[in-house]
Amino acid sequence: MSAISQLWEADSIAVIGATERPGALGRKPMDYLLRYGYKGRILPVNPRATEILGVPAYPSLRDAPSPVDLALIMVSAERVAGAVDDCVAAGVPLAVIASSGFAETGPEGAALQADVVAAARAGGLRLIGPNCIGAVAYNSRVLATFSPLFGADDVPFEPGSLAFVSQSGALGFGAASLALQRGLRPGWVVSTGNDADVTVLEVLQELAREPECHGLLGYLEDAPDIEALKSISESGKPVALLKSGRTEAGGRAAASHTGALATDDRVLDAALRRLGIARVDDIDELLDVAHAFEFPLRPRGPRVAVVTTSGGSGILAADAVEERGLELSDLTPESKAALAEIVPAFGAVDNPVDITAMVLSDPTLFDRSLDVLIADDTVDIIIACFCVMASTDVQKAVTSLGKAARKGGKPILVARTGADFLAPDAPAMLREAQLPEYPTPARALRAAGALWQVSRPRTPLAPVAAGPGAVPAPASGATEPELKRLLSDAGVRVPAGRLAQDRRDAAAAVREVGGRAVLKAVVPGLLHKTEAGGVRLGVTEEGAAEAYDALRALGGDVLVEEEAPDGVEVIVGMRGSALGPVLTVGLGGVFTEILADAGHRLLPLAPGEAEQMIAELKGAALLTGARGAAASDTAALAELLERVAALAAGWPDGFELDLNPVRVLPQGVVVLDAAYTATG
Amino acid sequence: MSAISQLWEADSIAVIGATERPGALGRKPMDYLLRYGYKGRILPVNPRATEILGVPAYPSLRDAPSPVDLALIMVSAERVAGAVDDCVAAGVPLAVIASSGFAETGPEGAALQADVVAAARAGGLRLIGPNCIGAVAYNSRVLATFSPLFGADDVPFEPGSLAFVSQSGALGFGAASLALQRGLRPGWVVSTGNDADVTVLEVLQELAREPECHGLLGYLEDAPDIEALKSISESGKPVALLKSGRTEAGGRAAASHTGALATDDRVLDAALRRLGIARVDDIDELLDVAHAFEFPLRPRGPRVAVVTTSGGSGILAADAVEERGLELSDLTPESKAALAEIVPAFGAVDNPVDITAMVLSDPTLFDRSLDVLIADDTVDIIIACFCVMASTDVQKAVTSLGKAARKGGKPILVARTGADFLAPDAPAMLREAQLPEYPTPARALRAAGALWQVSRPRTPLAPVAAGPGAVPAPASGATEPELKRLLSDAGVRVPAGRLAQDRRDAAAAVREVGGRAVLKAVVPGLLHKTEAGGVRLGVTEEGAAEAYDALRALGGDVLVEEEAPDGVEVIVGMRGSALGPVLTVGLGGVFTEILADAGHRLLPLAPGEAEQMIAELKGAALLTGARGAAASDTAALAELLERVAALAAGWPDGFELDLNPVRVLPQGVVVLDAAYTATG
Repeated sequence: MSAISQLWEADSIAVIGATERPGALGRKPMDYLLRYGYKGRILPVNPRATEILGVPAYPSLRDAPSPVDLALIMVSAERVAGAVDDCVAAGVPLAVIASSGFAETGPEGAALQADVVAAARAGGLRLIGPNCIGAVAYNSRVLATFSPLFGADDVPFEPGSLAFVSQSGALGFGAASLALQRGLRPGWVVSTGNDADVTVLEVLQELAREPECHGLLGYLEDAPDIEALKSISESGKPVALLKSGRTEAGGRAAASHTGALATDDRVLDAALRRLGIARVDDIDELLDVAHAFEFPLRPRGPRVAVVTTSGGSGILAADAVEERGLELSDLTPESKAALAEIVPAFGAVDNPVDITAMVLSDPTLFDRSLDVLIADDTVDIIIACFCVMASTDVQKAVTSLGKAARKGGKPILVARTGADFLAPDAPAMLREAQLPEYPTPARALRAAGALWQVSRPRTPLAPVAAGPGAVPAPASGATEPELKRLLSDAGVRVPAGRLAQDRRDAAAAVREVGGRAVLKAVVPGLLHKTEAGGVRLGVTEEGAAEAYDALRALGGDVLVEEEAPDGVEVIVGMRGSALGPVLTVGLGGVFTEILADAGHRLLPLAPGEAEQMIAELKGAALLTGARGAAASDTAALAELLERVAALAAGWPDGFELDLNPVRVLPQGVVVLDAAYTATG
Repeated sequence: MSAISQLWEADSIAVIGATERPGALGRKPMDYLLRYGYKGRILPVNPRATEILGVPAYPSLRDAPSPVDLALIMVSAERVAGAVDDCVAAGVPLAVIASSGFAETGPEGAALQADVVAAARAGGLRLIGPNCIGAVAYNSRVLATFSPLFGADDVPFEPGSLAFVSQSGALGFGAASLALQRGLRPGWVVSTGNDADVTVLEVLQELAREPECHGLLGYLEDAPDIEALKSISESGKPVALLKSGRTEAGGRAAASHTGALATDDRVLDAALRRLGIARVDDIDELLDVAHAFEFPLRPRGPRVAVVTTSGGSGILAADAVEERGLELSDLTPESKAALAEIVPAFGAVDNPVDITAMVLSDPTLFDRSLDVLIADDTVDIIIACFCVMASTDVQKAVTSLGKAARKGGKPILVARTGADFLAPDAPAMLREAQLPEYPTPARALRAAGALWQVSRPRTPLAPVAAGPGAVPAPASGATEPELKRLLSDAGVRVPAGRLAQDRRDAAAAVREVGGRAVLKAVVPGLLHKTEAGGVRLGVTEEGAAEAYDALRALGGDVLVEEEAPDGVEVIVGMRGSALGPVLTVGLGGVFTEILADAGHRLLPLAPGEAEQMIAELKGAALLTGARGAAASDTAALAELLERVAALAAGWPDGFELDLNPVRVLPQGVVVLDAAYTATG
């Protein structure tokens, strides 16, 4: 049993700083453990009490009977180190430090936090927190928390299958309370505060192993660890993450909150997509997605059919499909013909399928049209929309929809645009039929998009290591000719050419490449070569000597190269990131620099991923032949991306390789310039 | 009194097709009028009944006592024309046609609909519908609807101040029911179905005149009429519109639903922004915005301060600010200093201001920090976030927040991330204090963005008419030299030059412009001049004859022009649209064509709007001097936009003017090419 799983498996819990004083935070966990019927042993620790709320108390943890599976530390910051020492001495595997006054307050608090973590690690104790609100496990009734959530009069407390793990305790328990209000079933809520030892992702990893856990929901502020993300992804459990600090303003706020730094958000997006982890933008969306996770059916593809009793809902659904990375199915001609027999004249048989409010007088309309859609192989997900329906009508619709979903093994998400007072038992009926429901079509589609994101086939993001095609990393500051040799050896085309020895030799070199050449200064450390006058285009034999002299004057060698054919210029780069090596491709010049039109992927690439990166560029039409220009060889560009990825596999952290520009020709690609920096 | 206002002012209502038969649609309006206590006269019309639900019935409307203020027509499609004739004969000002079977079913139904509308118009009768669910007015208890919403057991029925007007009856009443569930107060719900006569916007115009109406919410599928939008905007009432069919898929679905066509969505965005009308993307967002409209405080600017008891909520709020067109205030140094005295060490005084959960033990934290933010002139809107708070704590917070909002006259929107069961009286307390509340920070910001959108200073979108700077429209197919003369006369710079008479004269013309020139073929109807070989750059006196011959061979005249200095190329265009003339500016070439990086505005431009269009281009950095290049004269470009707008004011509908390219120089702009087509 891992230390972290004590959050839900502990048979004995010490509450260090427990008190009977009404209103005190140290009383709350005692109240909650007693109120909700925790079955294990409760060990309040308080030097000035022999009994708390009828439970025998101990002056120190060292006096309490062992074993203690979990300690909740609720004393003031300066007394936490002592409590941690006591936990180590008592052989406690896991402590939750609720106390504030650590890294979130500044350098002094950060030092105190570092000391506490070091002591715990040395003593084999894992820590949750500090500066957190603790944790609850609904199934086992372990409550190591002082959250006011459990003090309310009518708080639901049932077993559940959803795990909410959050750096922010207030948001974590707030989200859980909203989930309960919606009728969702949280099984675990864990807040990790400063993430000083155990992180949000570690807790999610541990929960991914719990058979009763059907959905993992995380809120995090710190940059996530890629290995932890991979491990969670490999569990096969559906995961949605809300990572804040996405914008500059949010990033600044995050940095001042818990010392978290905004990481490269777009790289994280790419990584999460690759790992099949849904990323959400708000607590509201997190809950919508969590609800979809509660039920077992998963889409086998992104194609959506909308069946609706209201034309308006159908249009809103169609509007939302694309934005969520899904596609509106065209339906087969057979389906359309079959639907034409079923749907009333004032409805619609093209997707969205509008069966109209006639369904109220003819409830078989849902059954019959769903039969068609379930049988249609171009449909992976069904969105069913209805508005303002009373209980008896909802009951009929739910029966049809539940039967169809089970029969077809396709998820059906319901947009019920009507208040609960119209059909008070609708939420229960829909839950019973395992149909996730949302108040609007757009929200049903938002959840459907996440469901596809966590269900789509994945290629594992294996550890990046040297494999076929890998070469040793160049020396930092390797020159352009050195890098081009390395690329050429790896089968990448670079312009023919060589260094010129002197003015005369420059003319000879120009002749060798066909009588017109590009001359370039090779000066280590010279950035922005073009701006510095270090590049001469269209140099003839006659002009070679003058050009050579001018470039030589910049202080380095002179490279003579053939002129490359016309083509479209792109940038290819690779660099280290907090998540591992990142491959980038962008259209050249202003496209990348001003419009940030570049795609990023973590390595290793999945099959087809290089092509996808290119196709996703906003300016991709430039490569595929815009304005009557010839189409460029995007297949060759994709191959270059794969070669570069293979080449640099296993290069040590902290480097930047820039191939800029790479010219994409009607046939093939050629790398016109290359630079490498080791920054590690 | 207008005909449309009978929807809420009618003193007598005829229900044509009323019946006692249980479950029949024709019974429902009778049930509702009786159940909810309509004070006027109810006149059921049914040829086979003398009494319906105890109310005397009439075989035909012609037999009913006059006056009849409002008729609800619930008979089958083929009998609607007769009912309409009866209404005309009885002098009824307004009829609601609930019946289906009209334009939504195809050409035959469309013809029937056209006949009915023609008969009504000839007889002075206005029509709502057909194919609609009718309308309700909560304040006057007029129910001309069969919506199942009013048949539920515990449906709230109180006066309200929000108007929901929707083409889709199902969505309209569905949204209203969700509004009621949230505790919002709808006062009017009107569905207009096929919009055959009275449109959604006409109803909103009428409701804008109602003193008790505080917010106008519309759902529409058809392209809106600009004059109606202007009139609604001028009422000063806050308006939010959900216009579906935004995407291609949604547009197709809309077209098959009610014959609506997707209009140019980006032009509509521009128009609504200009008119101070908020545009929303989902019913959910419509309700969030509606709630903000219920209370009177309005922001005087876009600058937001976030005050939070949870660091996590603060980060999420900061993340959402920019996306909503708002700005995070920097706060004044004085405010920060004052906050540093108030906020605990583990909180934060930079915006977001994190007063921490310490507020639970020291409720004055809210009061004291709000005092600072309310007094800070860099703050226009306050977002207050708290999580998982119990009633007593919510009460304290609400008291502080309500007092501060009133004192400062600044809107405070609350993000209360906690379930209602934690504080069952919180919604009532917040409503009493006139504080709109949302479950998450992102949703509070979404509503705040709309609040600013409807509150920002507007320049009226006056009718476009010829004014100073206007000139008559060119002839269709006017040549490049003709258009350039027109531009030049209007003070716009074009390249110096003239038509060449012959080979010899071409050389002379080249000499006149400095010895190097651009030669262009002037061939009416020749599009894509460059691709057709119709442009020669860098022509010298020596080359003039050959170039002249080559261009002359294309079949038209030859224009000789000076070479323009280097600069950044942009496209300026103007064309008619369903909403009026639209001015467009975009960066040249691939930027506009591939990346759709162009800004659109309806005319006339507001002061500063031309500058704004330029600044909003994604590639604006190209103009302001990217990559070390010289900055271009964006002021001159803005002036050009204004000149072009003035020039074409009053040109007849259906034209396209393209200035492509326009070169923006370090000083000034020059129009290099111009084309004009009359398409009307």
